[in-house]
Amino acid sequence: MPKISHKGLKMPESPIRKLVPYAEEAKKKGLNVFHLNIGQPDIKTPRVALDAVKNNNIEVLSYARSEGSETYRTKLAEYYKAHDIEIDASDIVVTTGGSEALLFTLGSITDAGDEIIIPEPFYANYNGFSVANGINVVPIISSIENDFALPPIEEFEKRITDKTKAILICNPGNPTGYLYSKEEIEQLKELAIKYDLFLIADEVYREFVYDGIKHYSVMSEKGIEKNAIMIDSVSKRYSMCGARIGCVVSRNKELIGTILKYAQARLSPPTYALIASEAALETPATYFTEVIDEYVDRRNILISELKKIKDVKVSAPKGAFYCIAELPVEDADDFAQWLLESFSDQGDTVMVAPASGFYSTPGSGKNQIRIAYVLKKEDLVRSVELLKLALKQYMA
Amino acid sequence: MPKISHKGLKMPESPIRKLVPYAEEAKKKGLNVFHLNIGQPDIKTPRVALDAVKNNNIEVLSYARSEGSETYRTKLAEYYKAHDIEIDASDIVVTTGGSEALLFTLGSITDAGDEIIIPEPFYANYNGFSVANGINVVPIISSIENDFALPPIEEFEKRITDKTKAILICNPGNPTGYLYSKEEIEQLKELAIKYDLFLIADEVYREFVYDGIKHYSVMSEKGIEKNAIMIDSVSKRYSMCGARIGCVVSRNKELIGTILKYAQARLSPPTYALIASEAALETPATYFTEVIDEYVDRRNILISELKKIKDVKVSAPKGAFYCIAELPVEDADDFAQWLLESFSDQGDTVMVAPASGFYSTPGSGKNQIRIAYVLKKEDLVRSVELLKLALKQYMA
Repeated sequence: MPKISHKGLKMPESPIRKLVPYAEEAKKKGLNVFHLNIGQPDIKTPRVALDAVKNNNIEVLSYARSEGSETYRTKLAEYYKAHDIEIDASDIVVTTGGSEALLFTLGSITDAGDEIIIPEPFYANYNGFSVANGINVVPIISSIENDFALPPIEEFEKRITDKTKAILICNPGNPTGYLYSKEEIEQLKELAIKYDLFLIADEVYREFVYDGIKHYSVMSEKGIEKNAIMIDSVSKRYSMCGARIGCVVSRNKELIGTILKYAQARLSPPTYALIASEAALETPATYFTEVIDEYVDRRNILISELKKIKDVKVSAPKGAFYCIAELPVEDADDFAQWLLESFSDQGDTVMVAPASGFYSTPGSGKNQIRIAYVLKKEDLVRSVELLKLALKQYMA
Repeated sequence: MPKISHKGLKMPESPIRKLVPYAEEAKKKGLNVFHLNIGQPDIKTPRVALDAVKNNNIEVLSYARSEGSETYRTKLAEYYKAHDIEIDASDIVVTTGGSEALLFTLGSITDAGDEIIIPEPFYANYNGFSVANGINVVPIISSIENDFALPPIEEFEKRITDKTKAILICNPGNPTGYLYSKEEIEQLKELAIKYDLFLIADEVYREFVYDGIKHYSVMSEKGIEKNAIMIDSVSKRYSMCGARIGCVVSRNKELIGTILKYAQARLSPPTYALIASEAALETPATYFTEVIDEYVDRRNILISELKKIKDVKVSAPKGAFYCIAELPVEDADDFAQWLLESFSDQGDTVMVAPASGFYSTPGSGKNQIRIAYVLKKEDLVRSVELLKLALKQYMA
């Protein structure tokens, strides 16, 4: 019988996927499940993007340019300029989602057995893209005590070997909501230069920063033109996760040339989604003001409600729409399953993402969960109430 | 300075891409370029697919299921049943184009350093997907003399090592147009069983078979349920290359489970394209009758015109919409460039794909070109006339 590859066997399962059958069972039993577990916003996609697709006049749905059209990349460069990121259209390769952007980037800079350093907890699919490329993730633990700030730079330096090719951060972070400061980015920059490393920043939540703090992009740093790589996506920005349009941005021409070859091998990003993405750039500024006000309200109410629960610790997210909560349980995976299998209050229960899947060090984050605040406020309040009731019952 | 990976450096350039700047120059000079080089059909996408997207009522463009919706996969299974391929919806993982289907398949069955055997000439991007997975393509040359039939099975057997994981065929073939017979598939089946190899068949041109011959799928073979993998795509079938929807089909549950993990890591195929693809399954049968009649006419006129040129040898394609022609030149790459740079007749010239890019053995196919018959008949006639004039001038 033919065999699956070693890397195939190592491909991780999504930390949420394991719970899906339990959620389906709960729904079959007639329960109402509040989903705190997913990163799919409930926010409406900008009308201008939806209409562009509805009004298209395509007769032959043909390939788009592998790297995205000149027009779209030029407009994208203007969008970045408006966010203080001075790059050229030729520094961009349009990809099928941020996922493909990261897959191609890792393929272009690593060979099997190489290593990338990532502060943990981190977006779980970084593991998948790493396994797909046959490389190893070297994690550095960050702590809920300081809201998952950048770990001391000495911790990074200690882990650098001749196999280390890159440091990868998510800014602002999924699952932490942490927003890296200019100073933190500069520390990473120094390290990248000292050891000739790529510095990859996944900035797909750029717009979602709160409390008047400004997002500082890795592309804004001078002197790391060859090192800095930005991963981006329209998914969260315009609440169009299903489009599957992202991009890689770098001033390193050799890198962009290599990523372009990956892009050419898969021919084209999806044409309809490109129409939506290009039109989305015309989204009025008020859209973002409203969306961000909504997220701030949601975050504030979520955090304040969570803090009211005895023995629950919660970080203070400054961006994205996630937070990590530490629960007075030993095994959040078991608790999350129990919530779906054995708990309900007036026909309601709640689904959370156990945080262990966002850690690479075995045993880390066992008592933590990730909460996505992509539900409306009253649902968030009810969800936290359910968590509180459930914890009481579960602990008893 | 950080370095590109070894595999990044090895990523091949598309064999056609090199010629693109010359084609652009030719157009700038005011020349009319007939494109025999591309696999983008000029056939209209079925109205039912286009309308489904235009009439969508999406308000939040959300993620689709990683493996494709239950509905779409169930309908796909029915489509296959109508083509004598008895598979279950759970044997299908929907992908972002046939490209991703192959990328995930190779990732699931190979580790860096492994080998796959492919009869050459083969679809050039198989090289890209192989390099991306750090594996080596072991080619077996097939010959224009017998229209690129399956090479003797002993040639395959000779090349099998303990690193060999799979045999990959394209049926009907791009760039050859060859349609494998049931007997040829059965020879490959015996080999796959004997050596525990996967047998991957890229069947994206299934509908495009001519002269009353029936396509025989690798999925129709009994006894290789664990070995057989089918790669598919809506791109050519419905002339919707820009959709980017394909799938992997296999009865090997472990394999499908592994591919699903790859699919989950990249979250979702593109949502709009899924709408188009599901609707496309309602395409009336007359659409295909008309399209196939058109391709047969085009093929017949193309081949008969090519045969009239002295010293040009051409294979007899039974499927897809490509043929390989052998020219009385030493270096078809040079000739193809010369066509764009230095040749014109009454303001016209022609662009062809040099076949060398479809071979993996260095020096092979140097005097061959691939012609795609995706132009209307009068343009094909004019294109061959141009080729004839050009050859005369070039040889002088």
